[in-house]
Order: sequence, then structure tokens, then C-alpha cells
Amino acid sequence: MINKNYSKLEKNYLFTEVARRCDEFVAANPGKRVIKLGVGDVTRPLAPVTADAIIRAMEELKHAETFRGYGPEVGYAFSREAVARYYATRGITVDADEVTVGDGIGEDIANIVDLFDIHETKMLVQNPVYPLYKATSIISGFEIEYLKCSKENNFTPTPPENTENSNKGVVVFLCSPNNPTGAAFTRDQLQKWVEFANRTNAIILYDNAYERYITDNRCPHSIYEIEGARSCAIEFNSLSKTAGFTCVRMGYNVIPKELERDGIQLLTIWKQRQTTKYNGAPYMTQRGLEIALSEEGLRESDKNIEYYRRNVKLITDILDSKGIYYTGGVNSPYIWFECPNGMKSWEFFDYLLNKFNVVGTPGVGFGTEGEGYFRLTSFGSYEDTAEAAERLKKL
Amino acid sequence: MINKNYSKLEKNYLFTEVARRCDEFVAANPGKRVIKLGVGDVTRPLAPVTADAIIRAMEELKHAETFRGYGPEVGYAFSREAVARYYATRGITVDADEVTVGDGIGEDIANIVDLFDIHETKMLVQNPVYPLYKATSIISGFEIEYLKCSKENNFTPTPPENTENSNKGVVVFLCSPNNPTGAAFTRDQLQKWVEFANRTNAIILYDNAYERYITDNRCPHSIYEIEGARSCAIEFNSLSKTAGFTCVRMGYNVIPKELERDGIQLLTIWKQRQTTKYNGAPYMTQRGLEIALSEEGLRESDKNIEYYRRNVKLITDILDSKGIYYTGGVNSPYIWFECPNGMKSWEFFDYLLNKFNVVGTPGVGFGTEGEGYFRLTSFGSYEDTAEAAERLKKL
Repeated sequence: MINKNYSKLEKNYLFTEVARRCDEFVAANPGKRVIKLGVGDVTRPLAPVTADAIIRAMEELKHAETFRGYGPEVGYAFSREAVARYYATRGITVDADEVTVGDGIGEDIANIVDLFDIHETKMLVQNPVYPLYKATSIISGFEIEYLKCSKENNFTPTPPENTENSNKGVVVFLCSPNNPTGAAFTRDQLQKWVEFANRTNAIILYDNAYERYITDNRCPHSIYEIEGARSCAIEFNSLSKTAGFTCVRMGYNVIPKELERDGIQLLTIWKQRQTTKYNGAPYMTQRGLEIALSEEGLRESDKNIEYYRRNVKLITDILDSKGIYYTGGVNSPYIWFECPNGMKSWEFFDYLLNKFNVVGTPGVGFGTEGEGYFRLTSFGSYEDTAEAAERLKKL
Repeated sequence: MINKNYSKLEKNYLFTEVARRCDEFVAANPGKRVIKLGVGDVTRPLAPVTADAIIRAMEELKHAETFRGYGPEVGYAFSREAVARYYATRGITVDADEVTVGDGIGEDIANIVDLFDIHETKMLVQNPVYPLYKATSIISGFEIEYLKCSKENNFTPTPPENTENSNKGVVVFLCSPNNPTGAAFTRDQLQKWVEFANRTNAIILYDNAYERYITDNRCPHSIYEIEGARSCAIEFNSLSKTAGFTCVRMGYNVIPKELERDGIQLLTIWKQRQTTKYNGAPYMTQRGLEIALSEEGLRESDKNIEYYRRNVKLITDILDSKGIYYTGGVNSPYIWFECPNGMKSWEFFDYLLNKFNVVGTPGVGFGTEGEGYFRLTSFGSYEDTAEAAERLKKL
């Protein structure tokens, strides 16, 4: 009776092993200060204007006159319209009816695989990869094909050619700017994916959580900047890495009305799924989203992004000066670089920890193609990052 | 590529049709005041002590020193321990490690079917039934068998006999006190289910959302009051109908460590699921749960339950005086009664609307066995319920 796919999930000991080696080092070297630049979680607080919107909503719920019960499962009109207005600031037209607000981008991406037939759909997943896409596909029992990412394609893969004749429908997980590699697709690169999807009836699940970190004008802030994307792409977004909602929880996604497969509108069955299996995101958090995506909210949260960007530069300046190959940084809070002198990921981890007392994340933990790479993040404090950068000068 | 099971979901027009007929009546009879006692959603506000706990947590998130990032996917220790303490007040020992905190009881029940093999598991579902259990089973593609509920078994079904030789594993959805019928299992009745499950290796998914409405001492407040339940039952709970969290969102569940099937601990794979597909319930809401389940929080929210109970009595007094058969009311905010004079559910709906300008929910909307029955809820205001009761005296 038990779903056997759970036994196929890889035991990912990545962060456990990082913590173990780190603790061991600290125990053996009590005087040394270890700086951790491994975590993919924000540290800057919520913008008061956004937190206060949530607080005001909670005050409403204390009184019978302003109390609310169940809200719409797909999100209140006010929050879906706030998302549509945000898209409009990017010059993209999205109908509020195409927007669904949910508990987070992770949950939405994990759940959307429910819409596909296990036997007749193949998942295309990048390698290295954010573990969720792979794991949620494994739990459901989908066939998975990997898209090799490497220095050769600058960790921005091109559409595969052999899939075009697949007898299964294809769903592609793309994340740009990418976690863990920080690599971002340019418009031209993404255009190729959109053309591939429209040609082969594939669907692109586009994880756009880091779009606000983009500084390179060639990189799109939404897949809907690309012509033809509305008939093949679902875009997922998050307030976690922008407005600091990692513990507040809130994400949203867009499914264009044009997106149909097997004669079925994806938006319709996603709404069927959500109205059946989900009871809607919290009212107060949606009031937070409304402000977080307003001009004032964005101005405030962009200060945090600037803070992280300043950290990024401390690290990339060193990599630049040493001529070390890396992706990310420019458009991402993540810096993904080649371990010097052909070191393997864990070998470099130990070297960095022992010699410089700096902790990062071994790239191989994100997939076989991550071997020989390493990830540092800019989510630490400025002081810690500056101190780490100072140490790394002796790399 | 599309999951064809979505096309098997019944289009449930129940509440749409209720609203349509209601609007039509109002348009045709502008002077009449229609009282709505159909909705299954609370109307009393949050206890200020609980709302304030959430507000304090939001204040923390405004400052770097007290900001938090991702929390544990299964819930913070402080909230899981609050649940364990709540169980202890009922004399039930639950380890905080057996507790998972999530976005709501609906979501948890919808998602837990992920743990079972579609081909080797059969779902047992009551008829009439809260639509979720059936719908989430249909989306995944499980075989469903119905448990007939009727006046004969007082809408509290006994375990089936023919399932004992099934070559599939069996998962039973039980909800007590029940939505929509309000019927609650006694300890003796539930003992039979636990024995059935342990004998046949079935698993009981026990929806306990309405336990705080129980006044009959023979009815258990948790399935774990029943001997043997720890090896066969998962219990789901909610703060929606007690602390008024329908728009705040928060539920929790307990999976005892002893519960194993096919040599696999259910708690382990549920945690695998949650750490993979879920990023944890909001920090601030968990601070709300902590207070809502404290002595002070319960004292406050029980005032709302008393308020609804007073409404219940207004309605059951009339049914009693007229000798109309009903379940619920005593242990539930729902009253489920036989339509007088052999009327069908929708026939009675129209009669009640046209003659008394009162709106309720036709029982047949919850399943074929609900035909000839009708549901009223106690979630309206006291004034409205009293006025409706006054009108119903002429029934």
C-alpha cells in the first residue's frame, strides 16, 4: 500500500554533511572564527511597510465587523491584481484571472506536477539542479531526463534534440537566474526554449524566484517577455528572496489562458486542483504581498537586494582578480565557481574550511555535473562577507 | 500528457446552485429578508490574545536581530510541543516529534494520499461525505469504495466485512464529529474501526476538526483515546472551526511512531514528503497556534464555540418539538435532518426558501445517500439564527 517512490528519493546528506564537517572543525579549533557563506536563505528583515500591512490585517480579524472566513482558494482579487500590476511595470500584460497566489514557490512547483499523467509525461531537469524539481518528479513516479549543464554551455543548457520525437509529453523545469549556479538565460537563449516547447508541445515550468537580482539587460525578468511563451510556459514567483518572506511564506504563479495541451486549458485544471486540495493563502499574508509588490514595498525590499549585491561583489572581485571561472553573481545572490587547481568539490570544501575557515556548499551536492564546482552565497552579513573576502585573497 | 483524472472530478454545483436559486428569489421578492444558514464557515472573530501573538511575531521579523528565515518544514519545536501539551490535557501522550504543523487540515488530508501506492490501495469514503476525501482520491486515481450512511446506522457506519479479503491495502477516511452530518462516533463504535484496521492492516485517516464541539461524554476527543489506535490511525486537526483560523490557515496532524505498513514507518515518509514538497507553515501563525492551544487561548475561543452552541439549540429545539429525525447539533455546529413529509433535498430547499426565506444546504449535494436530508449550520449570528428559528416554528 505504501508509495514505493519514496524509497527512490536520494538521501541528500549535503547540508547535514556540511554541518558535520563544520562542527568537527570548530570542536578541534576552538579559537578560530568560521564564516558561513553556504546558506541559501535571506538574513535581512522584512520591510516595515510590508510587515505593517500584515499586522493591520491581523487587527481586522480581531473584530466581528472586519473578520473574514475562508478566502478564494486561488487568492483574493486584491492580491492577484497586485501581481498583474507588478507585471505591468515590466511591460507585460497578465490578467489577474491568470494569477494564483499560494503558500510559496516551492509548494506550487511541487504541486503542479499533479496536473500531468505519470505514464505519458517526461520531466526534463537541469544537472546540477535545485533538488525539488527532481524529488517531486520522483515521488510521483515520472521519468526524468537530465539537461547537462557545464562550463561548455555556461550552465545555460540548450533544448535537447532527441526529445522532439518522444512519445511522451515533455515538461521542462527551468530556473533563471538559476539556483545553485546563478546562471541566467538571455532573451535569445530563452527564445530557443520557447520555440522548442511550442514546436514539441512541451511545457516550460519557469522558476523566476531570482528575477529581481538581474542586472544584465540581455536577461529577461519574465519568460513572458519572450514571444510565444504564453502558449507554452507557466511562470512561478516568490517573495522569499526579494521581500524576505522565507518564514512568512508566499508565492504566486501565472498560467496564461492560451496554454492548452490535449485540448485542456492548464489554468482550468490548476484551479480545479487548488480549489480541491488547497484552501487559499492566508488573508494577512496576501495583504503583505499587496504592499510588497507596490512601488513603496519594492523600493524598501530592493534595499536588501542592494545589500546582498554589495556582498556578491566582494566575492566576484576576488574571483575576477584570480581569473577563476564562475557563473552567477551578476544576476544572482549565488556565485558558482570552478574549484581551483582541479580540486573536487568536497576537497575544496575541506581546503576552504581548514585554511580560511570559510564554509560554502560543494557543487556536487546539486548533481553529478556540479563536481569540481563550489557555491558561495551573498546572504551573509556585510561584515562576515568582507572578512571572508579578505581571507580568500590568499586563495 | 494531462492527468485525465481531473476530468473524472464531479462538477459540484452545490453552492453555486444554492447561490443561484437564492439570488433569483431575492430578485423576485425584493422586500423579503433571506437568512442564510448554509455556510460551513465561522463568523466569530479571532481571540485578541491569539491575534496579538501573531502580531508580535510580525514585529520580530521587522528587525535583523529577531528576523527568521526558513523554519523547519514539519513545524517549529515550540508549536509541535504546544500540540503535544494540548493532547496531554486530554490525557493522551503524543510525542512532539510525531506532530507535523501545516497550512490547514484540508491541505494535509489532500496531500497525505501521496504516501500510498495508487494501484495497491483502496480508499473507503463515507456517503454522504465532505467532498475533499473523494476528490483528492480521484485526482490521484485511487479506487474508491463507499460506506453507506443512513438513518439505519445513524450516519455512523460500521466497518465493512467484504474488505477484509481485499488484495489492496485499505485507507479509511473517517470524520467525527462529521461534516456534513454532525454525527459523532462513540468510543465503542470507534473501537470497532480500530480493531478492523489493526486486523486488516488498514489505515484510518481521522479528521478531528470538530472535536471541541463534542458535549457527549461517550464520544472521544481523539482517536488515540481508543486502545490500538496508535498502530493504525493518523489524526488530523485544525484551528479553523475552533480558533477561527479559516482565513489565517493552520492545521496539525499526528502520526504515531508505531504506525508502519510494508515495513515502512508512515511518520518517516510523511516527513520525507513535507521536507521535499513543503517549506513549513508561517512562523507568525505558529506563534498563533502556540497561544491558541494554551489555556488562555482555549478559554477565549471556547466562548465562540459556546456562541455557536447557543445557535444550535435554537434549531434543534424546533426539530425536537416537531419530532424530526436529525444527527449533529449535540456534538457539532452542523444539524443534519430528514426533510419533512418525504420531501427531496432540493424540494425542501425551495420550500424553505420560498415559504420561510431561510437558506440551507441540500443533503444530496454531499452524496447520493444525502437525498432527503438537509443541513443547517450554527455559524450565523445569534440574531439571524433566532429569527430563522422563529420562522421555522411554522414548519
